[in-house]
Amino acid sequence: MRLTRQHAQRYLPILDWGRTYDRGTLSNDLIAAVIVTLMLIPQSLAYALLAGLPPVVGLYASILPLIAYAIFGTSRTLSVGPVAVVSLMTAAVAGKVAAGGTAEYLAATIALAAISGLMLTAMGLLRLGFLANLLSHPVVSGFITASGIIIAASQLKHLLGVKAEGETLVEIVLSLASHIGDTNQVTLAIGAGATAFLVWVRKGLKPTLMKLGLKEGTAGVATKAGPVLAIVVTTAAVALLGLDERGVRTVGDIPVGLPPFALPSFDAGFWSELLVGAAFISIIGFVESVSVAQTLAAKRRQRIDPDQELVALGTSNLASSLSGGFPVTGGFSRSVVNFDAGAATPAAGAFTAIGIALATVFLTPLLFYLPLATLSATIIVAVLTLVDLHKPVELWRYSKRDFIAITATILVTLVDGVESGVLVGVIASLALFVWHSSLPHAAVVGQVPNTEHFRNVRRHKVLCDPQVLTIRVDESLTYLNSRWLEEFVLSEIADNPEVKHLVLMCSAVNFIDASGLEVLEALNERLGDAGVTMHLSEVKGPVTDRLSRTHFLYKLSGKIFLTQFDAFRTLAPDAAARGIMSTPDLGANRIEKRM
Amino acid sequence: MRLTRQHAQRYLPILDWGRTYDRGTLSNDLIAAVIVTLMLIPQSLAYALLAGLPPVVGLYASILPLIAYAIFGTSRTLSVGPVAVVSLMTAAVAGKVAAGGTAEYLAATIALAAISGLMLTAMGLLRLGFLANLLSHPVVSGFITASGIIIAASQLKHLLGVKAEGETLVEIVLSLASHIGDTNQVTLAIGAGATAFLVWVRKGLKPTLMKLGLKEGTAGVATKAGPVLAIVVTTAAVALLGLDERGVRTVGDIPVGLPPFALPSFDAGFWSELLVGAAFISIIGFVESVSVAQTLAAKRRQRIDPDQELVALGTSNLASSLSGGFPVTGGFSRSVVNFDAGAATPAAGAFTAIGIALATVFLTPLLFYLPLATLSATIIVAVLTLVDLHKPVELWRYSKRDFIAITATILVTLVDGVESGVLVGVIASLALFVWHSSLPHAAVVGQVPNTEHFRNVRRHKVLCDPQVLTIRVDESLTYLNSRWLEEFVLSEIADNPEVKHLVLMCSAVNFIDASGLEVLEALNERLGDAGVTMHLSEVKGPVTDRLSRTHFLYKLSGKIFLTQFDAFRTLAPDAAARGIMSTPDLGANRIEKRM
Repeated sequence: MRLTRQHAQRYLPILDWGRTYDRGTLSNDLIAAVIVTLMLIPQSLAYALLAGLPPVVGLYASILPLIAYAIFGTSRTLSVGPVAVVSLMTAAVAGKVAAGGTAEYLAATIALAAISGLMLTAMGLLRLGFLANLLSHPVVSGFITASGIIIAASQLKHLLGVKAEGETLVEIVLSLASHIGDTNQVTLAIGAGATAFLVWVRKGLKPTLMKLGLKEGTAGVATKAGPVLAIVVTTAAVALLGLDERGVRTVGDIPVGLPPFALPSFDAGFWSELLVGAAFISIIGFVESVSVAQTLAAKRRQRIDPDQELVALGTSNLASSLSGGFPVTGGFSRSVVNFDAGAATPAAGAFTAIGIALATVFLTPLLFYLPLATLSATIIVAVLTLVDLHKPVELWRYSKRDFIAITATILVTLVDGVESGVLVGVIASLALFVWHSSLPHAAVVGQVPNTEHFRNVRRHKVLCDPQVLTIRVDESLTYLNSRWLEEFVLSEIADNPEVKHLVLMCSAVNFIDASGLEVLEALNERLGDAGVTMHLSEVKGPVTDRLSRTHFLYKLSGKIFLTQFDAFRTLAPDAAARGIMSTPDLGANRIEKRM
Repeated sequence: MRLTRQHAQRYLPILDWGRTYDRGTLSNDLIAAVIVTLMLIPQSLAYALLAGLPPVVGLYASILPLIAYAIFGTSRTLSVGPVAVVSLMTAAVAGKVAAGGTAEYLAATIALAAISGLMLTAMGLLRLGFLANLLSHPVVSGFITASGIIIAASQLKHLLGVKAEGETLVEIVLSLASHIGDTNQVTLAIGAGATAFLVWVRKGLKPTLMKLGLKEGTAGVATKAGPVLAIVVTTAAVALLGLDERGVRTVGDIPVGLPPFALPSFDAGFWSELLVGAAFISIIGFVESVSVAQTLAAKRRQRIDPDQELVALGTSNLASSLSGGFPVTGGFSRSVVNFDAGAATPAAGAFTAIGIALATVFLTPLLFYLPLATLSATIIVAVLTLVDLHKPVELWRYSKRDFIAITATILVTLVDGVESGVLVGVIASLALFVWHSSLPHAAVVGQVPNTEHFRNVRRHKVLCDPQVLTIRVDESLTYLNSRWLEEFVLSEIADNPEVKHLVLMCSAVNFIDASGLEVLEALNERLGDAGVTMHLSEVKGPVTDRLSRTHFLYKLSGKIFLTQFDAFRTLAPDAAARGIMSTPDLGANRIEKRM
C-alpha cells in the first residue's frame, strides 16, 4: 500500500502538493495566474506566427499543456507553452515536409507535438534524462544565441511588410534584400514604433514606475504587461484609421471558441519523415525547460526530478497535439514571471490555462485588426535578450575547447540551420572531450618540505631523490591515453639512468580499463628488465578492487603504498638528510598550457 | 645544415642505421633473410588465395613493399607483406565492387593498395598516428579473434574441394552446408593430412628437434619451415600420382617472371567506392603493424616512431600497388621469425625481397601442381592461433565495459562482416567511455589518524568533524558529469544540516571545463545562501591557472588550500581532540561497484 502511494506520488506529483493546498496558496496562485495570462496572450500569438502558424494556434497550445504539466510536473513554478527556440525549430522541421500556410503544414506541426510527446514520455519512463548531459553549456548557449539571431532576422519581414523566406541567416538576409523595395511604410511605422516602445518598456519603464513609488517586484511584473499595451494601441490604431486597407497585414479572421479536440492524423510515412526533427525538438526543449526549472527550484530550496520532467513535458506535448497545437516546453521568461508573481504550486499553471481559454473564447474577435508587425516586434525584443555574443569571448579566455564548441555551434546554426547546429555542437564537444582525454597530464613530483604532500617538481621547490622517480598520473588510464603514458614513463626512465624505483602516484586515477592494465603490465615487465622496480601509491578503493581481480598485483615488482609519503619514506629514507631540491622552471606554466 | 640532416634522418631512417652497417650485421641479416624467405613463399601464396587472388600475386606483394619499408621504416625487425586479417578485409571490400576472379577484382585490390598507401602516407605526414588510439585493446583483440574464425571457415571449401561463398560466418557455413555433398575425397585427404602435419609441426616438432640436440632457437626457426615441407610433399604427390585429374584443384599455370610494373588504373568513381574500405584496411593494418613493431622494439630497447611508421606502411602499400600487388602491412608471425632469426636492420627485409624475387622468377613453374588444399591448411593452422576466446572471459572479470566492447566486436564481425565489426567496436568503446565519464565517483573523506592523508569514510576508519564536510571529486569536471556532482553535493549538504564548511578536494580533478565552472559557481552561490562556506583543496597547477583567469576565485566564499591537511587543520582545529571517527560500511564495496 505504502509502496503504491510512493509510486503514485513519483509519477503524479500533484498527489504531493495537492494534499496541503489551502486558501493562502490559492490566492497566491490566482494572482500569478492573472499576471501570466496577460503576458502569455501576446506571446502565444507571436510564437505561433514564428512557427509559421495562424496566431490562434498559439492560444490552443497554451491551455491543455498547462493542465498536463500541473498534474505531472515536479517544478512548482515552471510555465509550459510555446517558446521561441522550439517554435523556430518547429518551423524548420515542418517546412521541410509541407509548404507554409497549408493544411498539411498544420498537420505536420500537430504530428511533431505528438511524436515529441511520445518520445519525451518514453525517455522519462526509461529514465534517459542523463542524455541531456550531451548538450554542454557552450553548445546550448551558442545554439540559443544563433537561434535568437535567426528568429530576429526572420521577423524583419513582418516589420517591413514584405515577403521573405529562408531557414538560415544567409537565406533570410538575401531574401529580405531582394524584397526591401516592397517595404510598406505604414507597417514599418507600426513595427518600428512597437519595437521602440517595447525596448523602452524593458529598459526604462521599471525605473520610472519605481520612481513613481511602486515596489521593485510589482514594477518588474507590471513591465511584463508592456506587450499587451502595444497590442491594444496598435490594434485600435489599425481598426480606427483603417490601416489594413493601406497594406498593413493583420491577424484577420480567426475561428471563435475553444480548440477542436482531435487525434492527430497518423500516417507512418509522414511521421517517419518528422522523426529526426522531433527528436531534436524534444531534446532541445527538455534541456531548456530543465535548466529553467532547476534555476527556479534552487531559489526556493525545492528539487526537481529530471526523469519525471520528461514525462511531464511529454504529456504536455501530447495534450498540445490533441488540441491542435504545436510543440511546447518550459519557457524562461514566462516561468520567471510566474515565479516573481508569487506562484506557489503548479495550480497557478492550471488557472493560467483557464485564463487563456477564456481569452480564446471571448477575445479572438478583437484580434482581427492586430497587426503582425506588433507581434514580430514582441518576438524580436524578446529573443534579442537571448543573444549573448560576449560568451564566446569569455570562453576563449577560459577554455579553447569550449570556445571551439560554442563557435562551431553558432556558425553552423547560422549558416546551415538549427538541426545541423545542434548536431555539430554535440559532435564537436564529444570529439574535443575524447581528444583531450587522450592527451593527459602527468607530472614528476617531489615532497613539499615539512609536509606529507607531493607536488610537481617543475612548479614547486620540492624534495627529490635521484634513485626514486615519482610520476603523478593526472587522468584515468584508458585505451585513449595509456599508450601516451607508456611513452612518457619510458622516456623519463631513459632520461634518468640512475633511477632504481619508479612510483606511479595514482591519486588522480579514477579508473583503469583493460587497455590501461595491459600498459601497466608491459611497463612493469620492461622496467623489470631495466632493473627498475615499479610501485604504485594512493590507489583508490574502486581501482584496487578491480586490480585485485587480476594477476597484476602478483606480477608487480614493487609494492602498493597507501600514501605517497609512505612510499617516499620507505624508498628514499635519507632524502631529507641529503636535501636535494628541485629547481622549478618558471616557463613551466607556459609549456603546460593546453586547450 | 644540421637541421637538414636531422630532418632527412627522421623521414629516412635508413640514413641512421645505414652509416654503421658492417660485415657482422650483414651476415646476421643474410641468415635471417634466407629463413624468412622460406617461410614467406607459402604464406604469400596462401594469403593471396585468401584475398581471392591468384596465388602468385602474393609473391608480387612481397618484393617492392619490403624494399620500401627498409628505406622508410623505423622498426629494425618488422617484416611487411600480405597478412591474414588485411587479406580477409581486402576480399570483403573488393568483393563488393567486382566478382571474384575477374580482371576488375584484381584492379580493385591494386587500387585498394594505392588508396591505402596514399591515406597512410598522408596520415603520417599530418602526424595523425594518435587516431589509432581509438581502437582499444579489446576491440583489436575481438576483431582479430572473429577474423580468425571467419578466415578458417572460409578456407574449409578448399579443404573439402567444394565451392562455397559468403563474407560472414553465417553465409559461409550455410554455403558450405549446401555443398558438403560435393566433397572431393582426395582433396579432403590432402587437406586433412596437411592440417594434421602442420599442427604437429607447431606443437610436436620443436620438442622433438630439441631432443635430437638442436638449440631451442634453432629448433623454433626450423619448425617455421614446416609449411615448405608440406608444400613440397603434396605438390610432388599431385604431380606424380596425377591427382589433379581426380579433382584436386591446384595453383595451375602462372605467369613466369617478375611482376609487371604499372600504375594502378585511376577511375574516380571506382576509387570513391573503395574509399571507406581502404580507410578500414589502413587503420587496422596500421594498428596491427605498430603493436608488433612496438613489442619487438621494446625487447631490444629500441624505439619506433608511430607517425613515421605510417609513412613507411604508406610507401610499402604504394610499392605493392605499383607491382600489381594488394594491401600489405607488418605481420606478427613473419616479424617474430625475422627477429628470432637474428635480423639486425631493415636490410634483412631488402634481402628477403631479393629471395622472393628469385623465387618468383625460378620457382613458379614448380608450383603448377601445388594443391590449394595445402595452402588452405597453412592459413587455417596460422589463423587459429589468433583466436583467443579466453579474452572475453578475462575481461568479464576485470571490466564489464571492456567485455561489452569485445563481445560486440566479435559478434558483429561474425554476423555482419569485418567493417561493421570494427565500426561497432569503436563506437561502443567511445559510447561506454563517455557514459562512464558522465557517472563519476565522489567520496566523503576523513583524515587517516596520525597522517596527513584523507580517505573515504565508508571504507576506512577516519577522523571526521560534523561541521566540516570534505568531498573528494574523483573525476575531471566536464559537461558530462558536472550536473551529477551538483546533485551529489547538494544532497550531502541537505543530509547534514550541521555542516558549516564544505571542502571540495580536487586532487583527482585534472580539468574543469566551462560547464564544470558554471556548476562550481552555482554551488558556491547556493551554499552561500544556505550559510555554508565553500573551499577547495589540492587544486592542481594547470587547473588553478585556468580558474585564475575567471572571476570565480573572487566570488568563492571560502579559501583554496594547498593541501587537504591544511584545510582540515584550519577549519576543524579540535577534530583530533574530539576524536569523532567514521564507521566504515562493509557493504560499501558492493554498492560502489560499477562497470
